[in-house]
Amino acid sequence: MQASGIIVEYNPFHLGHDFHVTQARKQTGADCIIAVMSGPFLQRGEPAIMDKWERARSALLQSVDLVVELPHLFAVQHGDYFSKGAVETLDRLNVSSICFGSEEGNIAPFVNSHSKWKDNQGKFDEHLTSFLDEGMSYPEASRLAYRAIGVDELDLSQPNNILGYSYVKAIKQFAPHIKPETITRIESEYHDEIIKGKIASATSIRREIHTKGEITEGVKQALPDSTVQSLHNYIKDKGKFHQFEDYFPLIQHLLWTSSPEELRQIHGIEEGLEHRLLSSINRSSSFQEMMESVKTKRYTWTRLQRIFVHLITNTRKKDSYLLNESVPYVRILGMNKRGRQYLSEQKKYIEVPLVTQLKQIDHPLFDIDLKAQRTYLYPLSGNQRVESYHREKLPPLFV
Amino acid sequence: MQASGIIVEYNPFHLGHDFHVTQARKQTGADCIIAVMSGPFLQRGEPAIMDKWERARSALLQSVDLVVELPHLFAVQHGDYFSKGAVETLDRLNVSSICFGSEEGNIAPFVNSHSKWKDNQGKFDEHLTSFLDEGMSYPEASRLAYRAIGVDELDLSQPNNILGYSYVKAIKQFAPHIKPETITRIESEYHDEIIKGKIASATSIRREIHTKGEITEGVKQALPDSTVQSLHNYIKDKGKFHQFEDYFPLIQHLLWTSSPEELRQIHGIEEGLEHRLLSSINRSSSFQEMMESVKTKRYTWTRLQRIFVHLITNTRKKDSYLLNESVPYVRILGMNKRGRQYLSEQKKYIEVPLVTQLKQIDHPLFDIDLKAQRTYLYPLSGNQRVESYHREKLPPLFV
Repeated sequence: MQASGIIVEYNPFHLGHDFHVTQARKQTGADCIIAVMSGPFLQRGEPAIMDKWERARSALLQSVDLVVELPHLFAVQHGDYFSKGAVETLDRLNVSSICFGSEEGNIAPFVNSHSKWKDNQGKFDEHLTSFLDEGMSYPEASRLAYRAIGVDELDLSQPNNILGYSYVKAIKQFAPHIKPETITRIESEYHDEIIKGKIASATSIRREIHTKGEITEGVKQALPDSTVQSLHNYIKDKGKFHQFEDYFPLIQHLLWTSSPEELRQIHGIEEGLEHRLLSSINRSSSFQEMMESVKTKRYTWTRLQRIFVHLITNTRKKDSYLLNESVPYVRILGMNKRGRQYLSEQKKYIEVPLVTQLKQIDHPLFDIDLKAQRTYLYPLSGNQRVESYHREKLPPLFV
Repeated sequence: MQASGIIVEYNPFHLGHDFHVTQARKQTGADCIIAVMSGPFLQRGEPAIMDKWERARSALLQSVDLVVELPHLFAVQHGDYFSKGAVETLDRLNVSSICFGSEEGNIAPFVNSHSKWKDNQGKFDEHLTSFLDEGMSYPEASRLAYRAIGVDELDLSQPNNILGYSYVKAIKQFAPHIKPETITRIESEYHDEIIKGKIASATSIRREIHTKGEITEGVKQALPDSTVQSLHNYIKDKGKFHQFEDYFPLIQHLLWTSSPEELRQIHGIEEGLEHRLLSSINRSSSFQEMMESVKTKRYTWTRLQRIFVHLITNTRKKDSYLLNESVPYVRILGMNKRGRQYLSEQKKYIEVPLVTQLKQIDHPLFDIDLKAQRTYLYPLSGNQRVESYHREKLPPLFV
């Protein structure tokens, strides 16, 4: 059997995602589609709307064959580390290709842009540093640095092109035997406010769910039944979906009881940001207020959210060496029959432990996964927290 | 003017406390009664039912002339350090005497017992260690060690005799020029379940308020109007009284995101307790459940509660040297006319800074006060937390 990998967050799994799986299967000819999915917290530094189990279940019930978890430390990082973690995880499972959705739709511009970057790395870094020094955000500085070295074949102002490019970069660097592929995304625009027809962005779906406080008919049209079911299960079980606002009492408490020295030990808190955080937290009665008062051109919303995730998960600077080591295990969240067959065929060729139950691995990267998973439970009730804690010890989903 | 000091928690201020003030004034002949009061957290390791401002106000409106705050690090400690902090704070304000309520009622047995202990300190310590090694709790071991060196004049099974004795010990050691005095407590028994007549224990008052969820007629009979008013104000403002249960999500989160090494840095976490905490937290969906599962003969309820206060206030072992330094400031919470007159007369003789507004002192002991104060706000809403935070910057109460 041949497998193709996809890199996902499924927050939640919608018809656009389903289309991606179907197209990836068609284009790559793979027998098995493996999704590496962010766990409790996402790349933009947000808690997922519902837990990884329900998100994995809805994808498996619909079209994905195997869902594995991207280790938390890699999940909440800028594109380069995020991609490294995702590509390496898929590589551990011996996928032949990785297929991502992009605005571009053709793989050549990605590969060509990467070659050009490789040949001009020194120049690129100089430009990047100088743009950053001008106070630009990382994404902006990086886009202009690419332009400065003549990368013009690929539109790097498109969010999915940026992500796709960082996947290609990671593939070339860490798993060059994997074939990168891309398909055109048919989703609505990333920043769109409304849900159009049946394909809507996850962002607009979440906004609708959070503001309306329910799973509206409009939202349902953009989701497969499996996701509607999962959302219903979650709200019935937990009484709410997760939002960063619910973690604010914790953030305020941690800032109010930490010294600047202690805060500087948190991954991502640099350049005196600790003082900015400490002074703004005294004026903020909500997450929104705090973010508004802390953010700058340099400290973008996303970058700050990631830092707050590191704060509440107690992820330390001393842990960051793990980002430069290769991914040492694969945490299996669930599979269907095809996924199981693939795993059993590949078992003898897979060189890292497959984590299918708690306590199967003793590794500092996995300790961070556990801390993140437990932090995620914070807004739930006492009983729900203990129940969800023990869920982590059960075997993967099989649908 | 002459002042007499009293050592209090006022959780809340009731008619028994009022009687204590009146008797202290009469017996010592002092012009000014100064209460050193625990702030947000109490000696038995609990959050106060309402904040220190409302507790101080009700005492000032009734009979106390000046209320100052016992620094938090001393407030949440066993009797010896608690007494050292309280006696030293009163000594900074040049009180002539300290007058405490006791079951005993006469000062001679306290003073005599102290002399006997002083003459037999070596033996006492030997006995204490051996009883502790047998697995006894500290209070029990200490009581038997006193008996073993022949201290029999004072009944050290009575909680207020124990406290009083530790005050006398602290006076003799840290402020021998202060005269210890005692009056007989006329409160109901400390452990009593019900409110009897007009004098009730603070414990039974709190229990009634927490279980009934309101300020009942029975409770009102045991309280001066000023306290009834304060309780009403607090519930109207904050919607609830403070209980340890409300801090449980925080405790669970901190345990779930800390390594054993990190927990060992917390003041009071010793002898492998961190592992006991980490294993029991996974099974506990409430504070009550956690306490039941962690407590042992050695780790009493009170000792554990103090440790949990240190955990949530992030009080570290490295801070504990401060307990052996002398109290370096006095935080003034409020006063009446007499209290103000006393302070203005004494100002030139008081050798430490009087903290009357935030930022008046930069000292590690005061940093801990601030952390404790902010931790106390955790169960409140975002707006209430920010409002209460800024209350700390206003001048003391004047009634």
